[in-house]
Amino acid sequence: MDPLFEIELDLPPAGARDASKRLYDQLKAAILDGRLAAGVRLPPTRRSAGFFGVSRNTAAAIYEQLAGDGLIVTRPGSGAFVAVRKAEVAVATARGDFPLNPVWLRTDIVEAMGFWAEEEVERAPTSGLDFRPALVDAQLFPLEDYRRVSAKALRRLERRPAALKSPQGNQGNYRLREAVARHIGVTRAVVCAPDDVLVTSGAQQAFDLLARVLVQPGETTVAIEDPGYPPMRAAFAAAGARIAPVRVDAEGIVVGDIPVDARVICVCPSHQFPLGVTLSAERRRQLIALARERGAVIVEDDYDGEFRFEGGALEALRTASAADVVFYVGTFSKCMLPSLRLGFLVAPAWALPTLTAAKNCLDWHSATPVQLGVAAFMSEGLLTKHIRKTREIYRRRRDELLGLIEKRLADWLEPIPSFYGMHIAVTAKPDVEVAAAARGLSEAQVKIHTLARYFAGEPTHAGLVFGYGVADLSDIHEGVEAVRATLASA
Amino acid sequence: MDPLFEIELDLPPAGARDASKRLYDQLKAAILDGRLAAGVRLPPTRRSAGFFGVSRNTAAAIYEQLAGDGLIVTRPGSGAFVAVRKAEVAVATARGDFPLNPVWLRTDIVEAMGFWAEEEVERAPTSGLDFRPALVDAQLFPLEDYRRVSAKALRRLERRPAALKSPQGNQGNYRLREAVARHIGVTRAVVCAPDDVLVTSGAQQAFDLLARVLVQPGETTVAIEDPGYPPMRAAFAAAGARIAPVRVDAEGIVVGDIPVDARVICVCPSHQFPLGVTLSAERRRQLIALARERGAVIVEDDYDGEFRFEGGALEALRTASAADVVFYVGTFSKCMLPSLRLGFLVAPAWALPTLTAAKNCLDWHSATPVQLGVAAFMSEGLLTKHIRKTREIYRRRRDELLGLIEKRLADWLEPIPSFYGMHIAVTAKPDVEVAAAARGLSEAQVKIHTLARYFAGEPTHAGLVFGYGVADLSDIHEGVEAVRATLASA
Repeated sequence: MDPLFEIELDLPPAGARDASKRLYDQLKAAILDGRLAAGVRLPPTRRSAGFFGVSRNTAAAIYEQLAGDGLIVTRPGSGAFVAVRKAEVAVATARGDFPLNPVWLRTDIVEAMGFWAEEEVERAPTSGLDFRPALVDAQLFPLEDYRRVSAKALRRLERRPAALKSPQGNQGNYRLREAVARHIGVTRAVVCAPDDVLVTSGAQQAFDLLARVLVQPGETTVAIEDPGYPPMRAAFAAAGARIAPVRVDAEGIVVGDIPVDARVICVCPSHQFPLGVTLSAERRRQLIALARERGAVIVEDDYDGEFRFEGGALEALRTASAADVVFYVGTFSKCMLPSLRLGFLVAPAWALPTLTAAKNCLDWHSATPVQLGVAAFMSEGLLTKHIRKTREIYRRRRDELLGLIEKRLADWLEPIPSFYGMHIAVTAKPDVEVAAAARGLSEAQVKIHTLARYFAGEPTHAGLVFGYGVADLSDIHEGVEAVRATLASA
Repeated sequence: MDPLFEIELDLPPAGARDASKRLYDQLKAAILDGRLAAGVRLPPTRRSAGFFGVSRNTAAAIYEQLAGDGLIVTRPGSGAFVAVRKAEVAVATARGDFPLNPVWLRTDIVEAMGFWAEEEVERAPTSGLDFRPALVDAQLFPLEDYRRVSAKALRRLERRPAALKSPQGNQGNYRLREAVARHIGVTRAVVCAPDDVLVTSGAQQAFDLLARVLVQPGETTVAIEDPGYPPMRAAFAAAGARIAPVRVDAEGIVVGDIPVDARVICVCPSHQFPLGVTLSAERRRQLIALARERGAVIVEDDYDGEFRFEGGALEALRTASAADVVFYVGTFSKCMLPSLRLGFLVAPAWALPTLTAAKNCLDWHSATPVQLGVAAFMSEGLLTKHIRKTREIYRRRRDELLGLIEKRLADWLEPIPSFYGMHIAVTAKPDVEVAAAARGLSEAQVKIHTLARYFAGEPTHAGLVFGYGVADLSDIHEGVEAVRATLASA
């Protein structure tokens, strides 16, 4: 029970003749007007003198009276509690006339953000198989290690006042920014200093922040990869950008198709989401040159660059030589856990002060306990260890899945080559009805996304996305057989 | 040293004749292009066979060559490290031509957000006295208790996949919302259910979220109290609101002065910031009636309502009967710690789905470890205990400060009556130059704000704000004497 009993009563003076009546009235009023909410425990009668200045017997009589009114319930051995009453929570009157910002009512934004939602509600933890991408196997995470280092790191919690508003603090905890700069230097060849890093509450906040700073509402055109990651384009659309979907082929975004007026170009160069292709060296050169020529900037979403299995380009697009035009977005959602809500931006020096000012206005800074915990997790080498471990696990899942797709599903589906990450996209052969198959699989408790979901414009590919973030080897076997059965029976 | 050595090299086949040369070239290239960042430790030569497929002697020769190039440094007993080179971090070229969203360049917004900043940089923790308001004495916080419950609560960290995108999760952790509903029911008479609560990353994010959902850019007029809390009006201004400052008198906001076209009215009814007055019962009735009549909504900022010392109105404005028009904003920044970045909204049912959708787009949800930690801190009764303790401390500080102001500063200053919180505003008597006094005090290492700082429009009050969040009794004595000395010498 909640130990709270803080309600302020206008208590009668000790020994007043009407003390009992006045205390009863006060408690009744406090219950009726909601100051004492349902479930709150009243002080035990044996302590009534201290709380109310009345005797135990008087308190017991008052409680009995309140119980008779239906306002409290007494449970032998555990005490007296405020009762749950019907209609206790006021029903708000409709305010459908209030003009909410229409951005949040736009179907493109609602759909983009609701992307994973519909099937998730009430989902039991172990039911069915889940091939949806961008999910993380939290069972693999070394939670005990994280608990240990984060509890220890919490000792460092800023005990000085005023950290809230210090400009340095708002760019993020310095130890974390140091660890981030070191980590992405080694794993992603992103050369930067801690002062180039701005800590955000996950990649989604980085997109929102970039959108709010880089977009002039109603004016700025933002080129996005199509297909792409819907919540990213939702952030830009919500900030008032005009969204220009651009085709993606085997070499990544088709740079020649980027509209002339695009001032912001959003890409996933390492492992395109969802197709999985890597932006070719030639396209990278073209893209950087185009951005410089047109005075545009590039937002690089490097959501799973740590999980690279073979070949392909190692580097992020944001090399030292592209530091002037590329905004690099990294996240701990994939390599640690999404529930930490921690990510970061590496931003050009010319934009960082404005981004930091905007971040202040959004929420001052990201939660310090999590920043300290992740910094400690990194500096103790636990992130590297976890990435090594999970990379091997994801590699095995991917190899197994690829082999099974080729062996069991080749009549219907063809995988798109990919060297990174936690999902494989497959294209459907002609006449294969993937939408119907996905619906059939959903009924069989196999969650799988069609490629069509990821398109902002008209889909150019028909296919499926096999995420293996939460599907282990046995799930993969079982799931592939379910997919085969569904496709074969179509 | 960082244990990471993850760089991928195109290694020569074992026994190749040019293995040594090729490995040298690869390492050199990786250092020059930044994949191997300064400070990274190279694998020990005794493990070179496993890492590089070359013998220890070959590796030692290569390291020697790299050291000769100035690319690595070897430290006896600790190993070989990538050297720090000059100009390693690329200097971004100027991009002053990129059209950033001009909102973030507006001086009213920059100044409102920079409000505390200028004096904060490089501030040593113990230098001088600090009377700035809205600072919290973190020394009083039971950090060991928080560490214990939060480490324990972390065991509950969502181990199921996909929590990220579940709609319920995005409104905030259910245990936390339950604890919040109970807490504000008892302490603030805000009757609500957990489902009415939306967890935010501090009050600042609640303001930003409300601004983005309630404001139609360029169209919506938002009435604010003047003087008021500058970062709150910055959030609304950044979302494109037209800001309408409204006078505050001894009864709170002057309801009759609220412009007819205001659709959003932002108030601090319990303890106006910074004046400290409480909105009178009559004004409350007027305000609610006005909002209903005009189809407007009210944003109630209840930043320190837990710290009530005597008399005045107990209730928040958002009673059950005003649940349709009031958006109640609460925060754990004052009653716990600002670095947690945790707050919440109680929103009318008609607006909650849209607010939740917008919150998703902003950052999906607030950091789960902190939500779990604060929920546990509350349900173990530690928040109540901490509030009881600090309320007594703040009460003593406030009584002491009030007494000293009346005894020592009465020739120049007069306190504004206030029943809550962590600061007292004082008005200056005619001909007292408070701005000059504040500057003089700043030189004497006493930080104090003038009331003028808090005005969006022309200041209607001249005075000072004495915050005692981080000033203890001895600071208060010393500070009041410093203020007296400054005022007396003017």
